[in-house]
Amino acid sequence: MLPVNPPARLLMGPGPIDADPRVLRALSTPLVGQYDPWMTSTMNDTQTLYRQVFGTANVATALVDGTSRAGIEAVLVSLLAPGDRVLVPVFGRFGHLLAEIAGRAGAEVHTIETAWGQVFPTSAIEDAILATRPKVLAVVQGDTSTTMNQPLDELGAICERHGVLLYTDATASIGGNPLEVDAWGIDAVSVGLQKCLGGPSGSAPVTLSPRATAVLDGRRSVEAGIREPGDEVLDEPIRSNYLDLAMILDYWGPRRLNHHTEAASMLYAAHECARILLEEGRDAVVARHELAGRAMLTGVQELGLQVFGDVAHKMHNVVAVRIPDVVDGDAVRGAMLADHGIEIGTSFGPLRGRVWRIGTMGYNARKDAVVTTLSALEQVLRRGGFPVPQGGGVDAALDAYAAAAAAAPASSAVVA
Amino acid sequence: MLPVNPPARLLMGPGPIDADPRVLRALSTPLVGQYDPWMTSTMNDTQTLYRQVFGTANVATALVDGTSRAGIEAVLVSLLAPGDRVLVPVFGRFGHLLAEIAGRAGAEVHTIETAWGQVFPTSAIEDAILATRPKVLAVVQGDTSTTMNQPLDELGAICERHGVLLYTDATASIGGNPLEVDAWGIDAVSVGLQKCLGGPSGSAPVTLSPRATAVLDGRRSVEAGIREPGDEVLDEPIRSNYLDLAMILDYWGPRRLNHHTEAASMLYAAHECARILLEEGRDAVVARHELAGRAMLTGVQELGLQVFGDVAHKMHNVVAVRIPDVVDGDAVRGAMLADHGIEIGTSFGPLRGRVWRIGTMGYNARKDAVVTTLSALEQVLRRGGFPVPQGGGVDAALDAYAAAAAAAPASSAVVA
Repeated sequence: MLPVNPPARLLMGPGPIDADPRVLRALSTPLVGQYDPWMTSTMNDTQTLYRQVFGTANVATALVDGTSRAGIEAVLVSLLAPGDRVLVPVFGRFGHLLAEIAGRAGAEVHTIETAWGQVFPTSAIEDAILATRPKVLAVVQGDTSTTMNQPLDELGAICERHGVLLYTDATASIGGNPLEVDAWGIDAVSVGLQKCLGGPSGSAPVTLSPRATAVLDGRRSVEAGIREPGDEVLDEPIRSNYLDLAMILDYWGPRRLNHHTEAASMLYAAHECARILLEEGRDAVVARHELAGRAMLTGVQELGLQVFGDVAHKMHNVVAVRIPDVVDGDAVRGAMLADHGIEIGTSFGPLRGRVWRIGTMGYNARKDAVVTTLSALEQVLRRGGFPVPQGGGVDAALDAYAAAAAAAPASSAVVA
Repeated sequence: MLPVNPPARLLMGPGPIDADPRVLRALSTPLVGQYDPWMTSTMNDTQTLYRQVFGTANVATALVDGTSRAGIEAVLVSLLAPGDRVLVPVFGRFGHLLAEIAGRAGAEVHTIETAWGQVFPTSAIEDAILATRPKVLAVVQGDTSTTMNQPLDELGAICERHGVLLYTDATASIGGNPLEVDAWGIDAVSVGLQKCLGGPSGSAPVTLSPRATAVLDGRRSVEAGIREPGDEVLDEPIRSNYLDLAMILDYWGPRRLNHHTEAASMLYAAHECARILLEEGRDAVVARHELAGRAMLTGVQELGLQVFGDVAHKMHNVVAVRIPDVVDGDAVRGAMLADHGIEIGTSFGPLRGRVWRIGTMGYNARKDAVVTTLSALEQVLRRGGFPVPQGGGVDAALDAYAAAAAAAPASSAVVA
């Protein structure tokens, strides 16, 4: 068997996207033992970095060693004891996932649903809170299945008023869209690296407020084999050992209580993802995604394509394009990949085969990536017999970039 | 915050160990989309490689995206429904861990225990099977906390005779010691990369026999959001979504049903770990670990140190050295790290502070690594005031290597 040797790809789907080359280099950093002073110091540094990424002072900020889905399950299984009520507003595939994971954790799951392509008015969520009185409100921020970005900025205050913990899965949205954990009063957040953070899948940064940490404190159970006199042992511990955030945080905390062996390579990647984001600046990164997303949006529109969903509420970093009835969507995706080396996606469930999802995320939220993708899409549609205006998409995107450059100070990072 | 920049380290503890430089390079390979034909083909190749590593024809062979502990929990939570009986022979910290994880999965856990430093006679395990009639026998192969290697070669036949599924956690032992999944009749195995496979923590290869897969077939529940007409939905699905092996195997199987986003960088690492092992040959790799382990064992003995436990049953790849009463064990470990750049470990629970654990694993199961470690240990003990024979450890190790070279054909990989 030969070494892995992937083809050249520009990943413009809903994620994963091309990792920043700096992150790829960080991945190849040599390993160090898990209790080496350098390693524990690097873990502490990584926590400091992610507090800044999240906009939080939460002590309980760490990485879960798994994909973003592991982070979701870690939060839900750790906060929700069997029988606890959780409310999940579902506006796409990943809302269903939160409900599914909470259900498997033994929670009493209540959902409200809206049509794919819409978000919830805040009042609808508050009404549902009043009707169900949950312990936790679990809501996706950006659901890539529909591209929608649920407004969260008012939910923290509502949840606090009603004694509810607010958890959000911000995997798809973080970096590309505003997320202010402390200012918005969010109690728990989990994310992944493989979208706007420009890294590989496989590490899930999480953060928990003091209110959420207090729940863990009541559910801590130190495992046999490393337990010491005075350690907590519960008859009904958190249902997962691997995803028990109380134990994970004891490993990341001053006690350094052994749990798993930290996935050092993924830690290095996560560390570099955060450094890259903070170097550019959180607001500048969001602005870069907003511009790239706007350029892509106007580009596909000027190619004569329709956009799916409530565009006013879509994430900056991904757009869902309706596949015209006369076009074979999979053939277009196949030609984009085979002839141009560019990946775009379709979606799930009711949107499977009905939309293409085109991402402008992380390292790929760049002018040249946007323009190259629109240029390729024009060629593929043309060759497939679908009439498209020559250069319509490319011109629209370049106009968006030119307008942003003209409007911004010359030194602004927005037009970098 | 500066980029990660670890100090030079030779990792001769119980793991993680220095990753093979080839694996570090593989980690920095560019990403590809999860449904790219190249990616799915590379996932298939990785399954083929791990079938060879495990010595199995099991179709159900894949990676769990998490550390070795995630692999353990995936197997146990997927095979054990709440109330199912499991028998765990405990001979160290990781036996306690299997019991803990099974208990959190809701299983009825029965344990038998033996003193740390011993293994179980096969007959004792069969007696316990007869007494408890478990659905699953869950046993660690090599428990790094004690260095013991439980003989498994007769357990498969016993389990089959009694209708029991045999699961083993071979994280610490695989590669360094024989493991024959099909020939020994083992139904489920999980491992990690960070010991004798020479990779980083963060990916857990697993394999399941057809008998074990049949259990999953009865517990499959396709999640909302991607469910299609005819798909299975259970009222009581597997308690974890992230670690549901039925879903993970549907993602790795021909249906490619979306679950997590594969951690591509860790997949690349796992792929390269297997390639390296198979290139050298499974038997040759075990022989290399046997020789390195024997050289280290005689080396520490010739330095005048005592070895802990039943040496006839220890793993090849790690030795537990009793810390002499007059020696400050942590000071020795500190000086090894600070002055020589070499990490050795201590242990857990009853052995914490009582032994040093010295590993000779994977990329570090090499003559120069063994000799360098023994040379450093001699110096550190001497400077600490503990009398050691000059060159006693180094000579013993080199004699072991010379004897092996003299006994083996000139071209043998054993002395490479």
